[in-house]
Amino acid sequence: MKKLLFLGIFLSTLSMHSQSVSSPSGFIKFDFSLSADGKPTYQVSYKNKPIVKTSSLGIKLKEGGDLTAGFTIDSVGRGATVDTYWTPVLGEQSTIRNNYNELTIALKQKSSDRNLNIIFRIFNEGIAFRYDFPKQSKLNYFIISDEVSEFHLTGNHKAFWLPGDFDSQEYAYTESKLSEINTDKIDLNNGIGLKSIAGKYIVQSPIMMKSADNVYLNIFEAAVVNYPIMHLDLVPNEFKFTSHLVPNALGNKAYLQTPCVSPWRTIMISSDARDIVGSKMILNLNEPSKIEDTSWIKPMKYVGVWWEMHVGKSTWDYAGSQNAQNTESKELIASGKHGATTANTKRYIDFAAKHGFDGVLVEGWNVGWEDWFGNWKEEVFDFTTPYPDFDLEEVNTYAKSKGIKMIMHHETSGSVANYERHLDRALELMKKYGYPAAKSGYVGRIIPRGEFHDGQTMVNHFNAVARRFADYKMMVNSHESSRPTGYSRTYPNYIAAEAARGNEFNAWSNGNPPSHETILPFTRLLGGPMDYTPGIFEVKMNIYDKTKTAQVHTTLAKQLALYVTMYSPLQMAADLPENYEKYPDAFQFIKDVAVDWQDSKYIEAEPGDYLTVARKDKKSENWFLGAITDENARDTQINLDFLTPNKKYKATIYQDGKDADWKINPKSYMIKTIQVTSKSKINLHLAQGGGAAISFQPIN
Amino acid sequence: MKKLLFLGIFLSTLSMHSQSVSSPSGFIKFDFSLSADGKPTYQVSYKNKPIVKTSSLGIKLKEGGDLTAGFTIDSVGRGATVDTYWTPVLGEQSTIRNNYNELTIALKQKSSDRNLNIIFRIFNEGIAFRYDFPKQSKLNYFIISDEVSEFHLTGNHKAFWLPGDFDSQEYAYTESKLSEINTDKIDLNNGIGLKSIAGKYIVQSPIMMKSADNVYLNIFEAAVVNYPIMHLDLVPNEFKFTSHLVPNALGNKAYLQTPCVSPWRTIMISSDARDIVGSKMILNLNEPSKIEDTSWIKPMKYVGVWWEMHVGKSTWDYAGSQNAQNTESKELIASGKHGATTANTKRYIDFAAKHGFDGVLVEGWNVGWEDWFGNWKEEVFDFTTPYPDFDLEEVNTYAKSKGIKMIMHHETSGSVANYERHLDRALELMKKYGYPAAKSGYVGRIIPRGEFHDGQTMVNHFNAVARRFADYKMMVNSHESSRPTGYSRTYPNYIAAEAARGNEFNAWSNGNPPSHETILPFTRLLGGPMDYTPGIFEVKMNIYDKTKTAQVHTTLAKQLALYVTMYSPLQMAADLPENYEKYPDAFQFIKDVAVDWQDSKYIEAEPGDYLTVARKDKKSENWFLGAITDENARDTQINLDFLTPNKKYKATIYQDGKDADWKINPKSYMIKTIQVTSKSKINLHLAQGGGAAISFQPIN
Repeated sequence: MKKLLFLGIFLSTLSMHSQSVSSPSGFIKFDFSLSADGKPTYQVSYKNKPIVKTSSLGIKLKEGGDLTAGFTIDSVGRGATVDTYWTPVLGEQSTIRNNYNELTIALKQKSSDRNLNIIFRIFNEGIAFRYDFPKQSKLNYFIISDEVSEFHLTGNHKAFWLPGDFDSQEYAYTESKLSEINTDKIDLNNGIGLKSIAGKYIVQSPIMMKSADNVYLNIFEAAVVNYPIMHLDLVPNEFKFTSHLVPNALGNKAYLQTPCVSPWRTIMISSDARDIVGSKMILNLNEPSKIEDTSWIKPMKYVGVWWEMHVGKSTWDYAGSQNAQNTESKELIASGKHGATTANTKRYIDFAAKHGFDGVLVEGWNVGWEDWFGNWKEEVFDFTTPYPDFDLEEVNTYAKSKGIKMIMHHETSGSVANYERHLDRALELMKKYGYPAAKSGYVGRIIPRGEFHDGQTMVNHFNAVARRFADYKMMVNSHESSRPTGYSRTYPNYIAAEAARGNEFNAWSNGNPPSHETILPFTRLLGGPMDYTPGIFEVKMNIYDKTKTAQVHTTLAKQLALYVTMYSPLQMAADLPENYEKYPDAFQFIKDVAVDWQDSKYIEAEPGDYLTVARKDKKSENWFLGAITDENARDTQINLDFLTPNKKYKATIYQDGKDADWKINPKSYMIKTIQVTSKSKINLHLAQGGGAAISFQPIN
Repeated sequence: MKKLLFLGIFLSTLSMHSQSVSSPSGFIKFDFSLSADGKPTYQVSYKNKPIVKTSSLGIKLKEGGDLTAGFTIDSVGRGATVDTYWTPVLGEQSTIRNNYNELTIALKQKSSDRNLNIIFRIFNEGIAFRYDFPKQSKLNYFIISDEVSEFHLTGNHKAFWLPGDFDSQEYAYTESKLSEINTDKIDLNNGIGLKSIAGKYIVQSPIMMKSADNVYLNIFEAAVVNYPIMHLDLVPNEFKFTSHLVPNALGNKAYLQTPCVSPWRTIMISSDARDIVGSKMILNLNEPSKIEDTSWIKPMKYVGVWWEMHVGKSTWDYAGSQNAQNTESKELIASGKHGATTANTKRYIDFAAKHGFDGVLVEGWNVGWEDWFGNWKEEVFDFTTPYPDFDLEEVNTYAKSKGIKMIMHHETSGSVANYERHLDRALELMKKYGYPAAKSGYVGRIIPRGEFHDGQTMVNHFNAVARRFADYKMMVNSHESSRPTGYSRTYPNYIAAEAARGNEFNAWSNGNPPSHETILPFTRLLGGPMDYTPGIFEVKMNIYDKTKTAQVHTTLAKQLALYVTMYSPLQMAADLPENYEKYPDAFQFIKDVAVDWQDSKYIEAEPGDYLTVARKDKKSENWFLGAITDENARDTQINLDFLTPNKKYKATIYQDGKDADWKINPKSYMIKTIQVTSKSKINLHLAQGGGAAISFQPIN
């Protein structure tokens, strides 16, 4: 892409203070201009209507003066339209199109003799820009104290927002007008262990919006590398957001050296919500894979010793107290409730092998869990020492004999210093036993103390871990990490992340409202696959303990649909083996569904309300469809025109029972099999909080 | 030792508010008492005269109230007199005596229901105390916001002090009255790259003092583990110091969990300065070696590709610019001045082999030096990639063929996060080629940003690195680390450290005044061996470049004496091979001198003025003597009664020439050989800034 810049026409435009460029489709028109005092600004219109009002751009520096005003235009670069295709290692489609027009404004700040370029890319579904700091004598090492990129919207849009929090994205979304955004109103009794709320009017990106005239908007970022995560600071009555970077321990934002670039800031715009939920802009704005041989990067469907701890059936820790009382004596005293035993793990391996899963995750296998949480403790886990009742050798030998891959678990408790110190030892252990992947966790305050989960230090950590895993040809799936911004294109072994409110919150907190999964694909998932851990059949926790009121806020059928609507090449069947064995017919969908795709069709989409997606397995002619709704029941007719014409398919439809309701009767489902073609239509009824899943298998 | 505590007499002393204990010799009397408001205090007398006035003890906590007052005495523990001997792996003596009386005061703070013990040990040459936080329900995890241990002295003593600095101890000492301490008066044009001065009246420990009535005093600490370094905050006119702990990025001091202990705070007291310079209190207060098999821990005399960079003959970096201009293009452009070439290294290996050295250090062998300093840059070195002109395989094969051990070099530039991330890879590389030891460096601001060299985080880092090296059976010698406090007893592979103003400052700054080396043994060296890098024969830098005015502030003979007066089992012959070849007769002393000892005798000692030490080689009957003086010439008669009676020795005396003077004629020396016995006396004349070295070899 860089090359095209130089092929473009550079105009000497010292007198030309404004520049325009349109999307390839022509619907989006982007205008750059320099204000009278040399401040870079831009505005955007969509279908000839303003959609972003004049908004300033700039960077404040810790030393040597800000890069916010006093600029002149040195040169303007316009590339030819880029229209290329690339092949993701794993993905929603086997081929991704990258199509945009580019504009580069080279700015000169005479007073400081410094240069700053701003690069804009105008896609059909939105715009993106980044700051480019070229190598120059007056700017070498520098510290960003603030980025002041504005996003001045044109109206009081409906928004789906999370409070800006430097340490957590594990909130449920609030749906409100922009003018009603106020993080003080968030119910903080929400099960999140560590909150660092940034301010009253600061929200997280990506933020999904809808205007009164039905234009969908999404502000996000791409390729956050060596830079902190961006939150958004709102002036509520002006509908104006300004970038708010996550600080480090000293309050600084980013430590950089020229030449370098900021992440891309993105505004997706479309009158069709499907353009946004299906957009590949974020991935397109990231660098291509830096891993040459990607043959070892493989999709995985897995089960694990995990949900049973969430529901209280067993514990992560061996001694079962979680209060350090057992850790002082060198000999741990077994509580008898430990989940990660050799025997229990073998049970999961047997189950995985019997039902065709790829892997088994085991949490709580290693010493440290008696006293791991909430104490800002530096040395909790060593990532290599198993509990006495977990035999690494035996478990791995058994798994190999059954053709099952074990998934390692690295909970850091936020002590990143300790994890980095032990990472190579941890990876060597994985190598020794043949683990292809690990799930990592970052529950707790970060060490180095003073750093946040979303600061530059931690972004660098998460990316460095992905690179180090790549050195070992291993995959990583991070939980409680900063939310992805497409780095999985560059390091496709960064196979998934949680980095949002996952299904686990349904086990022990006020949970995830039925609309939750209809919003995530418009927000969190734009940055990369999410390990949401769907597939909970026993949705009400009172089956484990009558006093429990927690429950999954969906029907059983919707849990099936999530395997399709929530894209991830790493998907867990999260419920207990014994629960799946109670519902073998419904479980069949989880066994059948693919996790890596030739193609994906977003059929119906309305953030916060519903989503219907169909996807074609990468390795077969099978299609899978997922349809979900929020708290409202929904009837819809699905046109099967995505199927290959002139081909017959057996469609197995898993849907809510007639009397299903997420709250009252969540486990009511029905399954039917029909024969269909690309000309068929299927009528689906989704219950309140319900969903439907369909598998399509060609009939020879 | 713990056992003795329980063997002791525990008195129920709720009514007894004061407790006394004396040193085994009876000269030091220590009194503990609780003030009316329940504040723990102590005082010390020496030979029946007060030497420490009533001083408070206590700990301030971030949460839950301070542990400074409101205490009652729960119990008092008195052990029997401890008098034991232990054998250091490497040391000044083959056997070390540990002799003290102990007093444990168990305090209860009723208001908070918390317990705090204070443990006191009274040695013949001083006292020590530490805080002991027992396991208890009301104190589990806690954060220390301040330690308020007072040291209230009785007069306006003479003091040798360094300004309290969280990042550097590389200052020259100021000699002044306590009332004159003022860090504003320090000349900051002293070559120190990074300074973080703590305050006007804050000085570093150890601080060496002398009272008007000729009592020597030293305040220091021992066993700093999981705790920050202690500086001392002075109330100048009261002669009262209070502990000042180095903060972390958030201003907190220490993150702890009960049960735990603070480091020991020590006050050495004697009317004979030799008791202090020869004291083993600091080592005695540390835990015994945790390394079982110590057979691989070996003393080393070494040369290295190092001083030639300091004098400007060659450079650490390959491209020779040190300004990053060469680092942008992937191919470095050789400047032709790179020191760490394969050929040059072989020259040092040849020299080392010819003259019987154990090892060769090579700095600048690895990529990164073009742009390594002063930019707070996270990823500078990877510790594994050599420059194109340094062939790791060839160098190591060659060294092995000559019987020489290579010493690895790990400069971190203060980016500890990066070093920890790469440490295992670095150690694996060392293992691959058989490096037995590394020198590490920490020049620059610390990353994690906001941390200081002397904070808890970094103390933990230095200790963790020593432990990790031990896992690999390798030794480490840290430069620009926090100063040692005896941890080399516990991890004897932590063979040496710089952590003070080393000889290198003489090459390019205002240097080290002639008194410098007469003070270090009373201060820095109490905590452990120092890699001072003595042996500079070409003391004036103008031989390299006529415009240079820097010089070593000693005579050549004094450089020889330093091998004896500055104890270290790792000693460098720091000058260039070609310089040694010019003075083969003087060089013979460096070749002969031992570095690990059966016994050491401190013959004459006056801090800031002079020091004479004799040591017996651990492996032979040879003795070596070093005598140094400050800027004043000195005549002294040495009684050789330390030699084995009835044995004849050949004494080779290396001393200043009659016309020698560190400034005017530093290279004037003379060597004579005489025969002596334990009844002999030798008269020595030391020039201004001069010294003398003697080797004693038994005549069969």
